[in-house]
Amino acid sequence: MGLDVYVVVHNIAKRHNVGTLARSATAFGVSELILVGRRDFNCFGSHGSTSHLRFRHFHSLQDARLFLKEKDCDICGVEITDDAKAVNQHPFKKSTAFLLGNEGTGLSAKECEICDFFVYIPQYGCGTASLNVTVAASIVLHQFGVWAGFPERTRDGNKFIVADRPVKQARRNYCTETADAIIEERKSRRENASNGFFDESRNSTSSSNLLNALFVDD
Amino acid sequence: MGLDVYVVVHNIAKRHNVGTLARSATAFGVSELILVGRRDFNCFGSHGSTSHLRFRHFHSLQDARLFLKEKDCDICGVEITDDAKAVNQHPFKKSTAFLLGNEGTGLSAKECEICDFFVYIPQYGCGTASLNVTVAASIVLHQFGVWAGFPERTRDGNKFIVADRPVKQARRNYCTETADAIIEERKSRRENASNGFFDESRNSTSSSNLLNALFVDD
Repeated sequence: MGLDVYVVVHNIAKRHNVGTLARSATAFGVSELILVGRRDFNCFGSHGSTSHLRFRHFHSLQDARLFLKEKDCDICGVEITDDAKAVNQHPFKKSTAFLLGNEGTGLSAKECEICDFFVYIPQYGCGTASLNVTVAASIVLHQFGVWAGFPERTRDGNKFIVADRPVKQARRNYCTETADAIIEERKSRRENASNGFFDESRNSTSSSNLLNALFVDD
Repeated sequence: MGLDVYVVVHNIAKRHNVGTLARSATAFGVSELILVGRRDFNCFGSHGSTSHLRFRHFHSLQDARLFLKEKDCDICGVEITDDAKAVNQHPFKKSTAFLLGNEGTGLSAKECEICDFFVYIPQYGCGTASLNVTVAASIVLHQFGVWAGFPERTRDGNKFIVADRPVKQARRNYCTETADAIIEERKSRRENASNGFFDESRNSTSSSNLLNALFVDD
């Protein structure tokens, strides 16, 4: 029935997490990784043969929601809320976008607002209050794939076969650069100035290094 | 029926992975994280209140197997072998120890020898040959917990409650320091000299920093 799965990332603070997240996303058949907040073409515009994942950018959570609703997609927050369903119960109905919380604080009230429902991952031990965000996302994507019955990728020995050609990251995947968009972006930059993910002042090479980190074998 | 779950780590090369792995292990009710190879008391002997996981050490894979078999435990390799079962099919029977492969090369022939069976995680996308080792371990531990029906940890708001007191890391958890053990360890150090996990020459502070990395919130 042509199910799609998306990952929506908003203000994830650590670059390393985006890299491993992208690796899991490609493994579990994610159509697009959607970044909300500051746009940064240098980060995702021209990565070479290692890239098999499509990136998309929106300035606001509401814009991301509109896009996903046009695709008749549920938005599922990955968070331990009171009404969250255990992910192994597969509370899915159709194409779904998974919204991930910030590593430290989980989903904010604003982020929860755009969600149609929530899933959480049951824990059984006493030693940690929550999981690493990429680990949580990977478990959720794994369970969605099991529910959706996605066909398995062909294997060669003890590895899954990697496709030869990467997805072309055409500029049209991004918001067009109208005057309005540029103003919006500047505003968004100011609002997100405290967000370490795109904070170049911390590390002058952060943008160019981000993609190098995407598919390191760790 | 008192099911136990263990994680066996042999020659994992990157310290960061052990940290996130330990976090997932505590979340999913792992009884002990078993290190095989070089013993390093400085790493795991005295970590403070952040630790809720028991570590155990063996010099060889065979010793680890003996210990686990005395506990009537299956040893399950996490690897994409020809006869591996998809982890979502829950091919489990009793208490199980999961043996993880090295990040680069997967399980070696020697490692496969001590396994009773194998599980793998189905992939649906074309972009990566395998998952991050901690992500793979976490998915397997999650599915084992679902199969085992472990009771869920109590939650407080959007976090699982962390226990007050850490597991006491008594020296008796480790191999005793007989003359034989010391000789064995020296031999093992030589054999594992190329293993970056315990290679202090790379980073003189590696031992002391390892535990600091265990529970960072990433």
